Amino acid sequence: MSNPLILVTNDDGITAPGIAALIEVASEFGEVLVVAPDSPQSAKGHAITISNPLRLNRTGIYGDIAAYECNGTPVDCVKLAKHVLVKREIDLCVSGINHGSNASINIIYSGTMSAAMEASLEGTNSIGFSLCNFSHAADMSLARKVARSIISRSLSKGFPGNARLLNVNIPDVSIEDCRGIRVCRQANANWEENFQVGLDPRKQEYYWLTGDFVNYDQGTDTDLYALDHNYVSVVPSMHDLTYHQYINEFKFLED
Amino acid sequence: MSNPLILVTNDDGITAPGIAALIEVASEFGEVLVVAPDSPQSAKGHAITISNPLRLNRTGIYGDIAAYECNGTPVDCVKLAKHVLVKREIDLCVSGINHGSNASINIIYSGTMSAAMEASLEGTNSIGFSLCNFSHAADMSLARKVARSIISRSLSKGFPGNARLLNVNIPDVSIEDCRGIRVCRQANANWEENFQVGLDPRKQEYYWLTGDFVNYDQGTDTDLYALDHNYVSVVPSMHDLTYHQYINEFKFLED
Repeated sequence: MSNPLILVTNDDGITAPGIAALIEVASEFGEVLVVAPDSPQSAKGHAITISNPLRLNRTGIYGDIAAYECNGTPVDCVKLAKHVLVKREIDLCVSGINHGSNASINIIYSGTMSAAMEASLEGTNSIGFSLCNFSHAADMSLARKVARSIISRSLSKGFPGNARLLNVNIPDVSIEDCRGIRVCRQANANWEENFQVGLDPRKQEYYWLTGDFVNYDQGTDTDLYALDHNYVSVVPSMHDLTYHQYINEFKFLED
Repeated sequence: MSNPLILVTNDDGITAPGIAALIEVASEFGEVLVVAPDSPQSAKGHAITISNPLRLNRTGIYGDIAAYECNGTPVDCVKLAKHVLVKREIDLCVSGINHGSNASINIIYSGTMSAAMEASLEGTNSIGFSLCNFSHAADMSLARKVARSIISRSLSKGFPGNARLLNVNIPDVSIEDCRGIRVCRQANANWEENFQVGLDPRKQEYYWLTGDFVNYDQGTDTDLYALDHNYVSVVPSMHDLTYHQYINEFKFLED
């Protein structure tokens, strides 16, 4: 593919170190268009903005690269890129590099993955990259190397069949300690939630979400297993939420 | 099940006619707890609030029924209900009745379905109900009848196996014209998006999301087919987004 058009977005906001790293890597492969939120949008899931107008503001923070900040959600950014900004097909959408894991069930809360899923829904091959470290000061060396490898192979080989979406998570280890890349399934895990309860300065009670992540899955073919063993996890993902094997078993609801 | 505890939530806000109808129906079956957003939260997807405190305010708008409005998203409401408010297991979570369809791909944008999915993730049988009419003045007669039937059967028979989530959509027809209930799969359909572009009073450009819903799926076993033929659609749903059949085909990404 000569000079592919690569859309870069994220949910941590256009100034986050993770998207800066991803823009740098993507620029090695073709023309880059950046459309990303103007403020952090973590945990926004697949939210879209329907009751308010959206704004796009071209910024010069990435030099000559066309970079727009948007007041909407990550999914809004992708929709605006595809339907307002681009003049030709987007060849690949990359989202991230997220500051924090989006493995397992985190895919449904994640703005990073929802942005990538939105592009995939509209037929564009898409990859979400996440580093398992929440700090904006985290070492991005391995994440850059992984992004370079996966973007390169995705552009040269394409995606098989109807697959359009990859959820890539990168362990928080050095390049030397990473044992490679494993293609795997989403682990069955979840947050065991809790709320910190407090009183605000006006003595009104508030609740603040907190919780522990718990893996219920003993499989060795999961993303969490791969990450725990210092592999990069790649989960081919999609948007059909039908629980197919239970369709017949729910026939008792029919009249 | 004697006096089951039923959690009622939605995304249109605690004062919407749809949730009022659902509260009325649910109250026929057991103890009802309502926790719903204090303002409309449509299209919020699986968003959660992590950077701000949440508030719960008990309201008397549903008489003796315990009803709380919350400043968070639909998913936040479910988490607060489960982890702050309830003293015993929730037997069933019902979300809606949404004003507007959540069939097919709308499940991933929908706050109504995300709230139900959140409860299902935490092990509670959950049902999202949506009426295919956006008007708050829509006739809810069929929707009430369907909710009554499905809640009744779900409480008496339980859900099979690991199934925890149903996406129920109700056609916008009279009770007489409804042909029954069909258990089906999510259709492959999507929004073909567009943006209305305008100038605000200060001559700044804005973009406002609009679009047409397009069904690419010729199957007769889908939710959209059922609804088009005046059936209620019930899609057993889940949260594993792995595209299992493509795991092996992506092995070319491994080192």
